[in-house]
Amino acid sequence: MLMKKIRILVVISFTLLSFTLKAENGYDLWLRYYRITDTKILNNYRTLISGFIISGDSPIIQSAKQEIITGLEGLLGRKLPDQKSIQNGSIIIGISNSSPFISSVNLAGELKQAGKEGFIIITKVIAAKKVILVTGNSDAGVLYGVFHFLRLLQTHQSIDQLNIISAPLIQLRLLNHWDNLDRSVERGYAGNSIWNWHTLPGYIDQRYKDYARANASIGINGTVLTNVNANATVLTRPYLEKVAALATVFRAYGIKVFLTARFSAPVEIGGLKTADPLDENVKQWWREKVNEIYSLIPDFGGFLIKANSEGQPGPQNYGRTHADGANMFADAVAPHNGIIMWRAFVYSNESPDDRHKQAYDEFVPLDGKFRSNVMIQVKNGAIDFQPREPFHPLFGAMPKTPLMMEFQVTQEYLGYATHLVYLAPLFKECLESDTYELGKGSTVAKIVDGGINQHILSGMAGVANIGSDINWCGHPFGQANWYALGRLAWDHNLSSAQIADEWLRMTFSNDEAFIKPVKDMMLNSRETTVQYMTPLGLHHIMGYGHHYGPAPWVDKATRADWTCTYYHKADSNGIGFDRTRTGSNAIAQYKPEVQNQWKDVSDCDEKYLLWFHHVPWTYTMKNGRTLWNELCFQYYTGAGHVKQMQQTWRSLKNKTDPQRYEQVSMLLQIQSEEAVWWQNACLLYFQTFSKMPIPEQYEKPDKTLKYYMDLKFPYAPGH
Amino acid sequence: MLMKKIRILVVISFTLLSFTLKAENGYDLWLRYYRITDTKILNNYRTLISGFIISGDSPIIQSAKQEIITGLEGLLGRKLPDQKSIQNGSIIIGISNSSPFISSVNLAGELKQAGKEGFIIITKVIAAKKVILVTGNSDAGVLYGVFHFLRLLQTHQSIDQLNIISAPLIQLRLLNHWDNLDRSVERGYAGNSIWNWHTLPGYIDQRYKDYARANASIGINGTVLTNVNANATVLTRPYLEKVAALATVFRAYGIKVFLTARFSAPVEIGGLKTADPLDENVKQWWREKVNEIYSLIPDFGGFLIKANSEGQPGPQNYGRTHADGANMFADAVAPHNGIIMWRAFVYSNESPDDRHKQAYDEFVPLDGKFRSNVMIQVKNGAIDFQPREPFHPLFGAMPKTPLMMEFQVTQEYLGYATHLVYLAPLFKECLESDTYELGKGSTVAKIVDGGINQHILSGMAGVANIGSDINWCGHPFGQANWYALGRLAWDHNLSSAQIADEWLRMTFSNDEAFIKPVKDMMLNSRETTVQYMTPLGLHHIMGYGHHYGPAPWVDKATRADWTCTYYHKADSNGIGFDRTRTGSNAIAQYKPEVQNQWKDVSDCDEKYLLWFHHVPWTYTMKNGRTLWNELCFQYYTGAGHVKQMQQTWRSLKNKTDPQRYEQVSMLLQIQSEEAVWWQNACLLYFQTFSKMPIPEQYEKPDKTLKYYMDLKFPYAPGH
Repeated sequence: MLMKKIRILVVISFTLLSFTLKAENGYDLWLRYYRITDTKILNNYRTLISGFIISGDSPIIQSAKQEIITGLEGLLGRKLPDQKSIQNGSIIIGISNSSPFISSVNLAGELKQAGKEGFIIITKVIAAKKVILVTGNSDAGVLYGVFHFLRLLQTHQSIDQLNIISAPLIQLRLLNHWDNLDRSVERGYAGNSIWNWHTLPGYIDQRYKDYARANASIGINGTVLTNVNANATVLTRPYLEKVAALATVFRAYGIKVFLTARFSAPVEIGGLKTADPLDENVKQWWREKVNEIYSLIPDFGGFLIKANSEGQPGPQNYGRTHADGANMFADAVAPHNGIIMWRAFVYSNESPDDRHKQAYDEFVPLDGKFRSNVMIQVKNGAIDFQPREPFHPLFGAMPKTPLMMEFQVTQEYLGYATHLVYLAPLFKECLESDTYELGKGSTVAKIVDGGINQHILSGMAGVANIGSDINWCGHPFGQANWYALGRLAWDHNLSSAQIADEWLRMTFSNDEAFIKPVKDMMLNSRETTVQYMTPLGLHHIMGYGHHYGPAPWVDKATRADWTCTYYHKADSNGIGFDRTRTGSNAIAQYKPEVQNQWKDVSDCDEKYLLWFHHVPWTYTMKNGRTLWNELCFQYYTGAGHVKQMQQTWRSLKNKTDPQRYEQVSMLLQIQSEEAVWWQNACLLYFQTFSKMPIPEQYEKPDKTLKYYMDLKFPYAPGH
Repeated sequence: MLMKKIRILVVISFTLLSFTLKAENGYDLWLRYYRITDTKILNNYRTLISGFIISGDSPIIQSAKQEIITGLEGLLGRKLPDQKSIQNGSIIIGISNSSPFISSVNLAGELKQAGKEGFIIITKVIAAKKVILVTGNSDAGVLYGVFHFLRLLQTHQSIDQLNIISAPLIQLRLLNHWDNLDRSVERGYAGNSIWNWHTLPGYIDQRYKDYARANASIGINGTVLTNVNANATVLTRPYLEKVAALATVFRAYGIKVFLTARFSAPVEIGGLKTADPLDENVKQWWREKVNEIYSLIPDFGGFLIKANSEGQPGPQNYGRTHADGANMFADAVAPHNGIIMWRAFVYSNESPDDRHKQAYDEFVPLDGKFRSNVMIQVKNGAIDFQPREPFHPLFGAMPKTPLMMEFQVTQEYLGYATHLVYLAPLFKECLESDTYELGKGSTVAKIVDGGINQHILSGMAGVANIGSDINWCGHPFGQANWYALGRLAWDHNLSSAQIADEWLRMTFSNDEAFIKPVKDMMLNSRETTVQYMTPLGLHHIMGYGHHYGPAPWVDKATRADWTCTYYHKADSNGIGFDRTRTGSNAIAQYKPEVQNQWKDVSDCDEKYLLWFHHVPWTYTMKNGRTLWNELCFQYYTGAGHVKQMQQTWRSLKNKTDPQRYEQVSMLLQIQSEEAVWWQNACLLYFQTFSKMPIPEQYEKPDKTLKYYMDLKFPYAPGH
């Protein structure tokens, strides 16, 4: 009878487990908290953790408590007690001065290191009991500590003798949502906006909370809810009440809300005749609007503003500078400790100059003219979130102004949500680039974190890849890019491999036989994408407008720098954009040491060859191939790598759950077909200039150039 | 040690159970298959079901097998064996001639009754073993039987001596998706379209399969994927390949795919100069297009067409009739056994006549002129899916033509996805209406099911309320309307209460203490909505264009019958649309027996009073109140009922899961506020005509009419 009961229980356990596993739809992201299946590790954790004691009752501490309960219950497969007294294995959680247990330990040095938002996770013996303290100087620090502690368990780390101090290197760690009020998402490929404006403020979708949890788990502490191509309606009272409802949810996870401000709002919703930033009525209008916002959202973060760019209104409409515009907003939010993030992504409608140069030319003269609560938000490269760009020349060129980084997490130019492209290597490549601003070692990272120029403000933003798809990001591996953005904003010294490793363990499995090949696949994926899309410094040869697929033949657009021919300049002689002295001389915007890496075609880093040089088809590359043959090699190699990714994934069929296995299999097949599409369309097109054959060893394109040119995508998403 | 193990297992079971329960996000709809918690019932089922034997291996039978495995494993909490030999408690599944066990029993009479798509679930003793047979004449019948068998378990029915024969009364049981190729959904309030056209055909979202499962579980056997305001692009090759991929998924669940055909497609994508349905080139183009579709989708269902309505192109553009247009399509699909569904929802851009009359006037003269594979799809009422309308006068007026029913499941005029309105009573009210076509008892249902006029074709369609929201329908109770549509299309004799009962048991709980009050709430909810929105026969007084909220003051639109004043005609004398002989005489479109119910103001069914009559404010109602006071009574009573719904729901907090409890609580609060909004806005506005006071006992509106008139909803969804 007893044995029968056991059998039944085993059956039930198994059944429920499989039922739970069935639901691997990706909604839980990296916070799955499934019971640890390695019994040795599980038993070890069960021995070392007896329960928890949490002090404080602020909304953030309540979030931390809920998370530790959910996390431990899930991971350890048992409900652990909220302990009344200290015991061996107690997890003691709270800010340092809120808990007599934590206060009893001298952590002064550690707390100083942790700073405002950092955390300490440390094993101590208190009253003869071995316990783990999770603490910090702020509720947010404690929350981050709790998430990190759970991450240790999720990734099977030893927790026997913990001594972790971690503090963010960057102050403002942001997501930028390009979400419109009609729930469409500009450059969104994972469904529509998760902000359901219509049902706000009355209906609080569970997603809002889970979004906040996910962000807090990786240290993201701010979110810009609306598209940089802004709509003034969000600043009207009914919408501000909706924003306030979201802010309330996010506040409990240490996340501040920001909005985009449409420069012409005073005219559009304020009834003024002008939006001139030096006009007293305009200033007054913004001050009052800002006061209204803060009356609803006391910890409102501030505004992100795109002005005089791609048709957006801005101060130049009134003969004013970007500084005039930014400072007007800065003055309005300053009394509330708000900040202004002003985008450097500007290029004139009229200017015939290389787009690469325009942001630099406009902003460098303004260095020192911005208020202290203004940051300039600079994209990683000077063109627009390409698969590969050299770092933006503004980094290192505006010492008096805090420059924040704008990365794009959503894959506008990187295969939408159907290509597996792990972006940490792209982010890291930029962050580790040396600007030589103050000599060697003046990396972009150190400019962004404020270290080089001793700025108080620092920030990193990622344009979100989040939508209403059940798994948030469309591609299961798209989640890794959201994760990586947050982790790098916290600590840009983390390696791409470290981040991939922990994400994989939390999201898929701790099985080394799974992690190793998949991590390799992730780490190589960005280079692979560069190869099959835009090798050797090619850029912006995607489909017109929607940016889907290859379209290097696009030579007509409402402006020259929205064509593809503007960027690749292929002709019978060769291909590439001469940005040296003989061309646009954009290269002159970099420090001489940087220029030296790129300025001579003969020793230019070949990653950027066609970015800076127009090179003959017959040019001999360092490896001895002609440029044309190298181009063929790159495209075919990239497309071939995707096939290898498919093989790798197929070999792991039994090491992951069926639902995500199938999802990724289908997506890799799409990626593989699209890589071949890129390879064929680009080579057939460039061949019309090179007049050279695709080398024998490669399979010839089975479609004509005309076939590719005739493809139309009237409903490509995100556009 | 043994005891400890048991304890651990109990803990694990409990933990996993609670973890599973946590995920009550509504995705699983009424197919939750959670383990039965009533141990008596559970043990009874476990005793009576030992395993299953399934014969056949078609895709549909494989679906049935997967479902019985998942269902039994979930409900009974144990994996049941796929048995090799017959045993006590075997569930024997398959079409009658596929299984020696089933063939061994004489079921000739039952099978005849079951017909093409019906099923038999019957307890038999075979070879001295007591077994349950689930069978039918087709794979689809078997699949429906499996779902019904699982429903018996889900709703805790006795399965000791089963003898069920069930066959659908209506042949074509359809969902109409008003989904656009950009994934917006016209009149969709649950996110965007679940059809991700961009990633099709390569990526098969799990949702497609779960959508098919849900539909098959309620007998839906067809789906129109695209908006009736059609886009010709879906007929181009790349899109047809996407459609084919969906058709493959749906085929395994007995569901056929239909598309909407844009009448002008031959011009728009075919390069022809005309779309004249009598033009040989046009006919040829459609024949070839249809052949192409069938080459990709051999079981393609056919087309749904909206022509010459609300600006859509149609045969009248070429001086042809609706019959000319429909017959051209009918001829093209006939060789493939396809059908054409031609919508009767037409009203002229120019005609000054009562919109109520126009469909009848256009279509009745065409009766008998349509090909045998044409059905006319008629909305339940003559105006447009209002909270209450008398049945459409076409029902009973076109004996030679199969008329199919078009209901609206999405709540365009019924509070979007934030109002709890159970629509079965609305559907039933229409279906049970007597047209008197062939004398008393000629109900709409009997016309729709083909019984009255002996039509071979019969159909019922619902405009879907399905979107990308995790819970599919936005409101957890919106799922009940999808469910009810399917169940009524299968068997329109089911009562609203029966349907609500089984849906609640499957979706929420079998606890009578929960079911009874919630079922009451559901059953009353539609009448409540009529009361707070459009009592006494009022109609179409919603916001302009988006139809959100009250806006009876709308008196300007691009056409008169898109205003609200057109419909309520309030003036200082009274209110209501005179559709009797003294007015538009739309009433003459009904049979005399029907007219008698409505034609005299003195004994008109007061539900339809203002639909058919312009009535003085001081008119005395049957209950003795003046019309004005009755109007006030209705609005306040309706809004008051919503508050009672809130109370009811609050009292059930511990009888449902926290996530859905909170969701419904928030939504009921929105509904309550919006009901008051309707009450106040409408009464304040109508008061400007009646000049009469709102009776003392009611709380006065706290806002002015101007306040309500100034409300703007520029981003109301679905528009």
